Amino acid sequence: MNRTDRPDAWTSGAARDSEVRVSPRQLDLDRRDVLIGAAAGAALFALPRSARAAGDLSSVHAQVDKQMGESVARLQEWIRQPSISAQNIGIQECCDLTMRLLRDAGFGSASKIPTEGHPGILATYEAGAKRTLAVYFMYDVKQVEEKEWSVPPFAAQLVDRPEVGKVLMGRGAVNQKGPEASFLAALHAIRAAGQKLPVNLVLVAEGEEELGSPHFSQIVQRPEVQAALRRCSGIMLPSAAQNVAGEINVTLGAKGVLELELESSGEKWGRGPTRDIHSGQKPAVDSPVWHLVQALSTLVAPDGNDPAIDGIESAVRPLSADEKRMVDELARRLDEKLMMKELSIQHWARDLDFRTTLERLVSRPTVNIEGIVGGYTGPGGKTILPHRALAKVDIRLVPEMKAKEVLAAVRGHLAKRGYGDIEVRQLGGYDPNTTSKDAGPVQTAVAVYRKSGIEPLLWPRSGGSWPGFYFTEKPLQLPAIHFGLGYGHGAHSKDEFYVIESAKPKVQGMAGAIHSFVDYLYAFASPSHA
Amino acid sequence: MNRTDRPDAWTSGAARDSEVRVSPRQLDLDRRDVLIGAAAGAALFALPRSARAAGDLSSVHAQVDKQMGESVARLQEWIRQPSISAQNIGIQECCDLTMRLLRDAGFGSASKIPTEGHPGILATYEAGAKRTLAVYFMYDVKQVEEKEWSVPPFAAQLVDRPEVGKVLMGRGAVNQKGPEASFLAALHAIRAAGQKLPVNLVLVAEGEEELGSPHFSQIVQRPEVQAALRRCSGIMLPSAAQNVAGEINVTLGAKGVLELELESSGEKWGRGPTRDIHSGQKPAVDSPVWHLVQALSTLVAPDGNDPAIDGIESAVRPLSADEKRMVDELARRLDEKLMMKELSIQHWARDLDFRTTLERLVSRPTVNIEGIVGGYTGPGGKTILPHRALAKVDIRLVPEMKAKEVLAAVRGHLAKRGYGDIEVRQLGGYDPNTTSKDAGPVQTAVAVYRKSGIEPLLWPRSGGSWPGFYFTEKPLQLPAIHFGLGYGHGAHSKDEFYVIESAKPKVQGMAGAIHSFVDYLYAFASPSHA
Repeated sequence: MNRTDRPDAWTSGAARDSEVRVSPRQLDLDRRDVLIGAAAGAALFALPRSARAAGDLSSVHAQVDKQMGESVARLQEWIRQPSISAQNIGIQECCDLTMRLLRDAGFGSASKIPTEGHPGILATYEAGAKRTLAVYFMYDVKQVEEKEWSVPPFAAQLVDRPEVGKVLMGRGAVNQKGPEASFLAALHAIRAAGQKLPVNLVLVAEGEEELGSPHFSQIVQRPEVQAALRRCSGIMLPSAAQNVAGEINVTLGAKGVLELELESSGEKWGRGPTRDIHSGQKPAVDSPVWHLVQALSTLVAPDGNDPAIDGIESAVRPLSADEKRMVDELARRLDEKLMMKELSIQHWARDLDFRTTLERLVSRPTVNIEGIVGGYTGPGGKTILPHRALAKVDIRLVPEMKAKEVLAAVRGHLAKRGYGDIEVRQLGGYDPNTTSKDAGPVQTAVAVYRKSGIEPLLWPRSGGSWPGFYFTEKPLQLPAIHFGLGYGHGAHSKDEFYVIESAKPKVQGMAGAIHSFVDYLYAFASPSHA
Repeated sequence: MNRTDRPDAWTSGAARDSEVRVSPRQLDLDRRDVLIGAAAGAALFALPRSARAAGDLSSVHAQVDKQMGESVARLQEWIRQPSISAQNIGIQECCDLTMRLLRDAGFGSASKIPTEGHPGILATYEAGAKRTLAVYFMYDVKQVEEKEWSVPPFAAQLVDRPEVGKVLMGRGAVNQKGPEASFLAALHAIRAAGQKLPVNLVLVAEGEEELGSPHFSQIVQRPEVQAALRRCSGIMLPSAAQNVAGEINVTLGAKGVLELELESSGEKWGRGPTRDIHSGQKPAVDSPVWHLVQALSTLVAPDGNDPAIDGIESAVRPLSADEKRMVDELARRLDEKLMMKELSIQHWARDLDFRTTLERLVSRPTVNIEGIVGGYTGPGGKTILPHRALAKVDIRLVPEMKAKEVLAAVRGHLAKRGYGDIEVRQLGGYDPNTTSKDAGPVQTAVAVYRKSGIEPLLWPRSGGSWPGFYFTEKPLQLPAIHFGLGYGHGAHSKDEFYVIESAKPKVQGMAGAIHSFVDYLYAFASPSHA
């Protein structure tokens, strides 16, 4: 996550007009890259002035437009520093760069927090304000399959994307450096306008989000971090909360996740070979690959959908009436066909109707195979009986499932069926999190969004995950909100991008995203302004 | 195959002395590589003189010893020309080299036979003899995982192997260039001794044996090849038929094989995504990887052993009383513990006893996963729902199973269970073959072996496969025999080798192998000599 909680595909069929702002004159981009139609160009930064008229924000918003060149360049610098946590590529360098970017944006302190894995960051911005907002950053990114990309994934090129606009393409563009860079740009604009930040900030960052945050507890549970967070009234995750049609998503929680590696081997099993042998021996010799395949096949229903792990369903809490009404609304407003197209599918699982599918999406645990490998996988065949095989599995958790209990359940389930030798290694994971729609930071977000002319869509829970339970559950119990206008695509896959200049009236580019963060900070400081 | 029909592991606990021959004085090898004990050195080429005293063969055998340097160098040249059929590496070059080696050995004609895949060879050696022997060669080799090897796999280095002797290590050393080079060396020796070859030869070679011989029919069924083969009284495959303890294996047939690729994809299925998407979408989206895992899991029993494909068992012919007696003898003479060690296993499948295991080995069909791959397989996790997955499967066939019928059965089995979309691609395959133990070429082999002082072990059928049914079944119905003293190891895996100078009295090195081919040719020409 946390882009992951905002699946690429949610889109709306409801077409509404929104107020139009002029495009910024100072936008310091290479215009040769841009091929945006006149009508679309005029629609850039469609956030209505009314949304920020409450305070004396016109000078701040002018600064946003004036600084767009630097804001895009800052994001490009950040993306050009790879930070692939799974492969430990550029992590230290990107951690240092992130701390510098935070200090440049006005954070008075930014300290590296060592963990047993990649380091985290605690940064504070003391503005002498009444209220304090916590902010979550991740500075790591997913791996890349470079040959699949149409541009080098760490070049941060500006690319024209038909029907989308000018986008910044690169790994981390939308997940999560783009929205985070927009948030930092908002801080720069406020300072450049000669204003004091209206809130204090406590920012916690990690470099292992894409690993399932295996050491995040070592950051967030440190006494000084807990002390800083106790001052906060909520935690915000800079996000690109719009979909391709401009609809805005507000998620009231996220699933937990358990990322596992399951390995079957002759060595661990004590059966089958401990090296690859000739497959002609199969009548006499057990196969560790078959052992893994048969073990995996017991983890889900025969159709590959519902989990079949002993005992885990009992913890699943059904949706409340309130949550079901949100799903009704989602089913009414979202464009089913467009959503299927974005997911590259022709059928929902089990051919369920759209509303039932949406309800499952927000309420069901899943067991997914991220990858599987064993034996010979090159061209042609090779008549071997392999001695080991490996599967990478993620299990998404909904309230009241606990990652620790599910891990034990997986092990117990396998052991009971004769697969107890299969090594189950936890790569990462954490519990689900929940925030009430009535919480202040959520209501503030909804109010800011409404003033942009779009009624946000409330999701009872995202289909993805982020380690928000460290904040939302005891002892902190902070409401958590993903916030930010803007749109991007391709998180975890090829050609990831964040829209810089939108070709669509309702979809915000980066300037619109920055404006939305300015508005959110002022509204959070003084909720009545929202 | 066809080394594959001679699993690496069969070994005997019965210790017998065998007559000792002097070591060859002319052995032109780099002695610095050799660290063979004096006793072992004296035991080289232990084939008794009596085995070749029948004709005037002493001058031939002297030539074998004299030419050992050239014989080893010839094998080295052959191995140094890679010929990996699965990757189309060096195939044309090796086909040309093989034809040259055949002509050099006295074949009057050697022509390339084009196929839709890699070319085959038909070579004939007209000696004006009464009887004609068919010979099968393969010139291709398996792929290599070079990093696993202790020496470069195509350098054909001479290496000292503790407790084994001096070996020639390289891909193809035992499977099959080594034994084939020994056979060619026998022809060179006969000619050098001024003798006429006692038999005519019809040699058929292919370059796709390691692919499951997908185009072998286009070679063997050509009219000129069929015409040449009709003149033959049997077909011989040069082999290294000894195991590590010196026991000699005679196999009376081989299993058939069907090599398949099974691919599940969103594209073919029409369900699930057609590109990798975020795994948070799993509640709404079908998984092609789960689809493959669940489909595979239906192909075998839950313990991964017996096939569970609808209908294929009905064609399995039980062993005859005669074959069961052979298994009794195998169980009595083979060293179970050593065999398990060679297979790197601690238990037989299902913890069956040794005799039952051996009976299963020669009589049971199997479904094996050679390899499986899908999704993300690098370090750490990656929360994707992959759009495709692939498994490579081999199915071993016993009489009276037919490859074509089993392929149809696999497809029908999958379709019946809702997996009809899974693409089943045949990579290669052919039916099983059988030769009677009473056939002349078999009896000749047994007689030659006996004279070496070792009673050969008769196997009703090998656990591996070769496309012998083109010869053994109608219309040709030639008896087929794998023949040749000598020992090697590592076919299809790392550090493949063929013994050049054996450290064990009962195990022959390359010279002993060549001597055995000389003896076989004379015995075949005049069976009473055997």
